[in-house]
Amino acid sequence: MVTLTEVARLCNVSASTVSNILNGKKNVSEATRQRVLKVIEETGYEPNFYASRMRSQSSRTIGIIAEDLSMYTMPIVERTMAVCEDQGFMTMLVNLRMYDRYSDTWYYDETKLYDVYKAGITQLRSLKVDGIIYIGGHSRYLNIFTDLEDLPLVVAYAVAKDSTIPSVIIDDEKGGYDVTRYLLDQGHKKIALIAGVHENLHTQKRLAGFQKALFESGTLYDPGMVYYGDWIRKSGYDGARILMQFKPDAFLCMNDFMAAGAMDYLREKDIKVPEDISVIGFDDVQLAAYTLPALTTNRINHDEIGRRAANKLIDIINGKDMARKEGRKPIKVPCDMVIRDSVVKR
Amino acid sequence: MVTLTEVARLCNVSASTVSNILNGKKNVSEATRQRVLKVIEETGYEPNFYASRMRSQSSRTIGIIAEDLSMYTMPIVERTMAVCEDQGFMTMLVNLRMYDRYSDTWYYDETKLYDVYKAGITQLRSLKVDGIIYIGGHSRYLNIFTDLEDLPLVVAYAVAKDSTIPSVIIDDEKGGYDVTRYLLDQGHKKIALIAGVHENLHTQKRLAGFQKALFESGTLYDPGMVYYGDWIRKSGYDGARILMQFKPDAFLCMNDFMAAGAMDYLREKDIKVPEDISVIGFDDVQLAAYTLPALTTNRINHDEIGRRAANKLIDIINGKDMARKEGRKPIKVPCDMVIRDSVVKR
Repeated sequence: MVTLTEVARLCNVSASTVSNILNGKKNVSEATRQRVLKVIEETGYEPNFYASRMRSQSSRTIGIIAEDLSMYTMPIVERTMAVCEDQGFMTMLVNLRMYDRYSDTWYYDETKLYDVYKAGITQLRSLKVDGIIYIGGHSRYLNIFTDLEDLPLVVAYAVAKDSTIPSVIIDDEKGGYDVTRYLLDQGHKKIALIAGVHENLHTQKRLAGFQKALFESGTLYDPGMVYYGDWIRKSGYDGARILMQFKPDAFLCMNDFMAAGAMDYLREKDIKVPEDISVIGFDDVQLAAYTLPALTTNRINHDEIGRRAANKLIDIINGKDMARKEGRKPIKVPCDMVIRDSVVKR
Repeated sequence: MVTLTEVARLCNVSASTVSNILNGKKNVSEATRQRVLKVIEETGYEPNFYASRMRSQSSRTIGIIAEDLSMYTMPIVERTMAVCEDQGFMTMLVNLRMYDRYSDTWYYDETKLYDVYKAGITQLRSLKVDGIIYIGGHSRYLNIFTDLEDLPLVVAYAVAKDSTIPSVIIDDEKGGYDVTRYLLDQGHKKIALIAGVHENLHTQKRLAGFQKALFESGTLYDPGMVYYGDWIRKSGYDGARILMQFKPDAFLCMNDFMAAGAMDYLREKDIKVPEDISVIGFDDVQLAAYTLPALTTNRINHDEIGRRAANKLIDIINGKDMARKEGRKPIKVPCDMVIRDSVVKR
């Protein structure tokens, strides 16, 4: 391959003259410019990406760090990339593959995450990215974002403990409120809750929304009627088995997998959904449209999380967002109720 | 940030001396080396990735081009990245986002793909990747891989028309054979086929396997008992409606969505699965475990496709695979039967 130095020699000019022409600088005569461009065309010389990036402090590239590629994070990654492209930025994705590395033992262990994260940041820094979008594998407070200096960062689907770093999350509290409100509006009086893992931020916020909706309707919140599962189908089954002693008229489940598990138990006991008891889920993953009856649930708007995170980062890069200096609250993206057949009016 | 030139000035040596030390060259006195390293540590100078890459023809980086990030391609991307990391390669993912750009109108339109693909190749070439793994969004022959010169390429989940380029695909013919064989072994005599889109390579190969299994068992293949759907739930419903006139004892569906659609129709007509009729799917997507009854199907081993594609590319990069020079057949990854409750022994 022809180098810049060889092009310069063939044109009998200095390498920096060739470089100036390539970078559109005006301090070169038109005759020289034409001569150099002709040689470049004839030799098939390709400017070196690294050489041009090395001279510039901006790469017009945004780094995306995903803790994992899953059905939850994938649409966030996809939308982020689309927005960046629309705004003239390349993207570089680093996938930390936390689940692949550590199964579920990393969920609440920031030390496991930190080393992998650091390697990702180093890789992206060396590419001189203009900023980073960090996509959490699940919602929680993250304390890993140190040593960023002035590298712009936006966190999606998790929350940076450092409140000067913008975060974009789903509005779990309103989501929990909305599903509860929907059950109450359909005439349900005794709602048993199959919650997620207790320490999880989704669980905490959805629970707060649940309690708020009950309070507003004058219904007493009974902590005994809450079962803390671990998001998988089997724990929904177990939750339903244990909570049936309270004779609820509805199960509110904090994700669709547990809602499907609750329906497994009810089917086994020949209890009809929704005739005998209503079941409502959360997330709207693929299975929700295929259970029998199809599951009424609350759809997470991953697309919108990606869009807002990318736009926020680009605003910061372009100097249109000055909020880095002051504290701020996470940006919350609302969920959308999806009404199917698992809830009936009583 | 401190530059290499500033480090050189502080040490009273030339920039190329600093550079030589960083690159481990031996033509520098130990005293100078120590002095320079001390200043580098004190100033926190970070060597420039682009500068070092610019000097080298190898980046120890593998480019991944995905036509789309979907539930099918995501696990291929994930495993590819894991293998590359294990072998000491960084990865750079370019997502062509074909579905996001063109909905499903790009499936059989290579001109739409070509421009987006070219931009991706240019981006990865400028990063001096050592090779590329191209992950198709669906299976078909691809004729876009021109002008690659000596850049190593492996295609996954699609087939390069140029047979000197290695391709890794699922073994659709054996997959189609296995599901048919399973139904025959369970005593089914009249199998109606709900196929995918007619021109699709998955469809063609699975159909060949279907015919082969019928032939071996001495059963006549009846093209009238084949309905060509378009992979979505509704077309499975339509296929079942049309094919029920033949009074089949089993529906073989070329994906799980269409199998779920066939079950929708059967439920509507109060025809019991599997008591009255068996239903078998293909792919093992999430929904398959949640239909009622749960779907017996044939799982695509995306993980293994990613693993083999990455290993093949690294072999080529390391000079261990000489096959670029001669023609070769695609590498085929077998599917795994997943037995659930939608097929009964007759």
